[in-house]
Amino acid sequence: MERRFRLILACPDRLGIVAMVSNFISSHGGSIADANQHSDSSTGWFFMRVEIVTASGSFDREQLIEQFTPIAQSFKMQWEITDSSVPKKVVLMASRDSHCLADLLYRYHEGELDCEIPCVISNHDDLRSMVEWHGIPYHHVPVDKEDKQPHFDRVHQLIVEHEADTVVLARYMQILPSTVCDLYRHRIINIHHSFLPSFAGAKPYHQAHERGVKLIGATCHYVTEELDAGPIIDQDVVRVSHRDQPQEMVRLGKDVEKTVLSRGLRWHLDDRVLVHGNKTVVFN
Amino acid sequence: MERRFRLILACPDRLGIVAMVSNFISSHGGSIADANQHSDSSTGWFFMRVEIVTASGSFDREQLIEQFTPIAQSFKMQWEITDSSVPKKVVLMASRDSHCLADLLYRYHEGELDCEIPCVISNHDDLRSMVEWHGIPYHHVPVDKEDKQPHFDRVHQLIVEHEADTVVLARYMQILPSTVCDLYRHRIINIHHSFLPSFAGAKPYHQAHERGVKLIGATCHYVTEELDAGPIIDQDVVRVSHRDQPQEMVRLGKDVEKTVLSRGLRWHLDDRVLVHGNKTVVFN
Amino acid sequence: MERRFRLILACPDRLGIVAMVSNFISSHGGSIADANQHSDSSTGWFFMRVEIVTASGSFDREQLIEQFTPIAQSFKMQWEITDSSVPKKVVLMASRDSHCLADLLYRYHEGELDCEIPCVISNHDDLRSMVEWHGIPYHHVPVDKEDKQPHFDRVHQLIVEHEADTVVLARYMQILPSTVCDLYRHRIINIHHSFLPSFAGAKPYHQAHERGVKLIGATCHYVTEELDAGPIIDQDVVRVSHRDQPQEMVRLGKDVEKTVLSRGLRWHLDDRVLVHGNKTVVFN
Amino acid sequence: MERRFRLILACPDRLGIVAMVSNFISSHGGSIADANQHSDSSTGWFFMRVEIVTASGSFDREQLIEQFTPIAQSFKMQWEITDSSVPKKVVLMASRDSHCLADLLYRYHEGELDCEIPCVISNHDDLRSMVEWHGIPYHHVPVDKEDKQPHFDRVHQLIVEHEADTVVLARYMQILPSTVCDLYRHRIINIHHSFLPSFAGAKPYHQAHERGVKLIGATCHYVTEELDAGPIIDQDVVRVSHRDQPQEMVRLGKDVEKTVLSRGLRWHLDDRVLVHGNKTVVFN
Repeated sequence: MERRFRLILACPDRLGIVAMVSNFISSHGGSIADANQHSDSSTGWFFMRVEIVTASGSFDREQLIEQFTPIAQSFKMQWEITDSSVPKKVVLMASRDSHCLADLLYRYHEGELDCEIPCVISNHDDLRSMVEWHGIPYHHVPVDKEDKQPHFDRVHQLIVEHEADTVVLARYMQILPSTVCDLYRHRIINIHHSFLPSFAGAKPYHQAHERGVKLIGATCHYVTEELDAGPIIDQDVVRVSHRDQPQEMVRLGKDVEKTVLSRGLRWHLDDRVLVHGNKTVVFN
Repeated sequence: MERRFRLILACPDRLGIVAMVSNFISSHGGSIADANQHSDSSTGWFFMRVEIVTASGSFDREQLIEQFTPIAQSFKMQWEITDSSVPKKVVLMASRDSHCLADLLYRYHEGELDCEIPCVISNHDDLRSMVEWHGIPYHHVPVDKEDKQPHFDRVHQLIVEHEADTVVLARYMQILPSTVCDLYRHRIINIHHSFLPSFAGAKPYHQAHERGVKLIGATCHYVTEELDAGPIIDQDVVRVSHRDQPQEMVRLGKDVEKTVLSRGLRWHLDDRVLVHGNKTVVFN
Repeated sequence: MERRFRLILACPDRLGIVAMVSNFISSHGGSIADANQHSDSSTGWFFMRVEIVTASGSFDREQLIEQFTPIAQSFKMQWEITDSSVPKKVVLMASRDSHCLADLLYRYHEGELDCEIPCVISNHDDLRSMVEWHGIPYHHVPVDKEDKQPHFDRVHQLIVEHEADTVVLARYMQILPSTVCDLYRHRIINIHHSFLPSFAGAKPYHQAHERGVKLIGATCHYVTEELDAGPIIDQDVVRVSHRDQPQEMVRLGKDVEKTVLSRGLRWHLDDRVLVHGNKTVVFN
Repeated sequence: MERRFRLILACPDRLGIVAMVSNFISSHGGSIADANQHSDSSTGWFFMRVEIVTASGSFDREQLIEQFTPIAQSFKMQWEITDSSVPKKVVLMASRDSHCLADLLYRYHEGELDCEIPCVISNHDDLRSMVEWHGIPYHHVPVDKEDKQPHFDRVHQLIVEHEADTVVLARYMQILPSTVCDLYRHRIINIHHSFLPSFAGAKPYHQAHERGVKLIGATCHYVTEELDAGPIIDQDVVRVSHRDQPQEMVRLGKDVEKTVLSRGLRWHLDDRVLVHGNKTVVFN
């Protein structure tokens, strides 16, 4: 039997990176099942993702990491090696809207998402039955509007307890404190509506209707301290017309949101999203 | 032989509008070739576009207008009747970028746009040969950066002289004075790039590249006094990736711009775009 | 309180149809909330859909039908009047694949589909739990490959017993006998994969992969006697690449299938799909 | 100054290909500006495209080819090395329809297509003026319906005389003889309309209208002996409705055709399209 690992790396571009990496792999009896590179001419950085196949027993992840470390250091790489057979642990967070959560749970149930979902956390109890039908524990952690800290403390504790690699904000309508954002940097995925032009403030779909836009969209991004300004993973839009009242726009917007979120999460789970500065390289 | 007229109207919604309009048409021996209605529940306004077919000789536009006026007044309509056999006169304005102009000229040449193009006006002389190959007069009206008024005066004069119904800003990079905008209200069409999120300031494609957006788009709209904030006619986007440097984004953006502009103009020429407040109803 | 009815009609085009219809509506104190017309110049047929609003108590559907009948006859109309407050009864049929069924059940659960789902029928028992979680009865009607007639008899019986207006084949992998197709003409909706070019025979996604197509799609249509050749309601496609193995294409194909099916069903439930000959007019 | 070469290769997949290739490049002082690989698990073939940057003067294409040959042989590669600074010579062929030709000429004129166009060949004289405006020689080679061979002989002669690397059939409505197809294998690009489902025979847009399809599309492919069955480079579709008469579908179809053709040609010019068997790997 064979084993598969994924090596992702970003470093300043220079001569011989690919040769060094591919030599490393073949000298360890591995072969390259899939590889992507990208040289960003505007920043001078180099990005790479390699799927490595090795014969079973020959290697484990720790050995690969140990032996790749000197190479990585000499090239000043930001890098990671993951074992494809170890699914990421993904904690889902939701509020009352079910569209993103239901879509992710369905895809998980059908084996479309290569991950484990140890639990769902919500500040409301509405979606418990849907989650529990999928055999996943549901944690209702209410928010006290006067003092949100106990909520966030409990959320943080649950994320840690469930050893989450990744947190997905599936229409979780709270703003996570920056302490949590920092701890799970580039590992918290959010989805939000997007318009051309943008609309600030409340009721964006009503504003979009008011403005008579012809497209509404959604953006999936990593959460950073600055609200909705983190590295973008994916975006999409859907066409609307004068016939669409705000509630229709909301319905169509939900479809785009869930599509973009599940696509972004899928790429993240496959280690296809590399972040540099505030932007992503997505090897999809 | 038959003749065709188009009646477009907007008025506060109330009982019996369609009955009144369709009675008017059939009592004058006309039939309805195509009709669209829209009731906007949020504003309480009603919109309608009717293509009327009459036997030749039975009617002319002036008679229709005269006889429809009392009905229109009783319903407080904003309305217009156009003769489908009389193509609109469209003055195109450009600067140095040729993509939108070339696309419109090609479609005009192929008979895809039901209009006359009496002339092209530009603040540069670069595109003269392309325009003149199509048999269209080219007016080079330079801009003096210190005093733009003479430019705008001459532009205005040319528009009037050529009896333009419609002006298309096909990447004309100047901001028309509000006096002209007001005179040709809902008859000046502009195209501009659009992003999710929006970017203010210079070099928007560079900003979009910097931000790592995954979609870039374009918006076609009627020009109003407030820059790029007029009623939206059409929008579209194209997918980009980390591989696309700013110049690639510009190239892809040009394709979206010309597509959206020619589509919007086409609908305008067919009297399919009704404006109410700052938004459009597009019966496409 | 107000009531809403929908009048849909198709007839040979001639003078005065809209006037007659709108007079009928206004003379009965109704107003037109929404209306669409279409004159098909190639067939000479006229199509119309009108949403009629009346004051509550003033009218019921039977009265409208009775009084409209003479008009309909004089214009040789194929027509129907439905009461918007009476949701259609939709029987869902499935086999083992859950993607379409799960999507429809979710949208039903969220109130996005204006219908009742009296039951789900399947030739397998796999999806029972998912269906029953939604509070909908599940009928497992096995198929005997040697003699399918008892299966179809029972299916037919269940459709009748549940007074279905509409039957949706949500990846039900059996071919309904023509007797059933005829009885529910233009009321059985199917979804199937579509490619450019088309592929006949088994394993179409493998054939598409073999051929190296760049788009895969789905078509939603009314079931007629001739397999997959009924009137098309909607179609869509998704982009694939050389990286997509057949199983990836299947996964992406499922997403298109469910999107197109739910959109087509939605339009059907709103009486927006008019059929003439083997093609549809969709007033969406 | 630097020079750029492109190495594209396809071979049976085995251990060490990437290592060997990247070693070859770095040992010759080259660096990898861009690289794509693809392992096709269903066929067991490996595909690669590398953009190599070398310091000017250090290497020329012939030296690279000579020194890479032994490696290529040991891996049984189908391969090619091109010099990015040498644009391909592309002969365009057209008939009467101008949409694809005009689009390609415009993009060529704007510097969007990295190629030379030594001439345009057509069996009609209609498009001479458009082509000559772009400063490109136009060869009118009429077709005698009774005996087409002289036409094809002359066409072949012109292609050879102009040293074409690539031939683009921009709506050239003749079927090239298989002798020519064989000589320019995977170097003749064609565009044709595509539908879901497919339609055989004449007037496909009328058939599509008759069938009430909701999407019409276009396929760009390499020409092989079997008509319209060669390796697909790109495909796209556009939405149509019951309102679109056949002539409208033709107009919309033209837009898709020119978009898909110019995109496919662009990828071909950048050596991004690798062919294996009857399908393509497109590293776009």
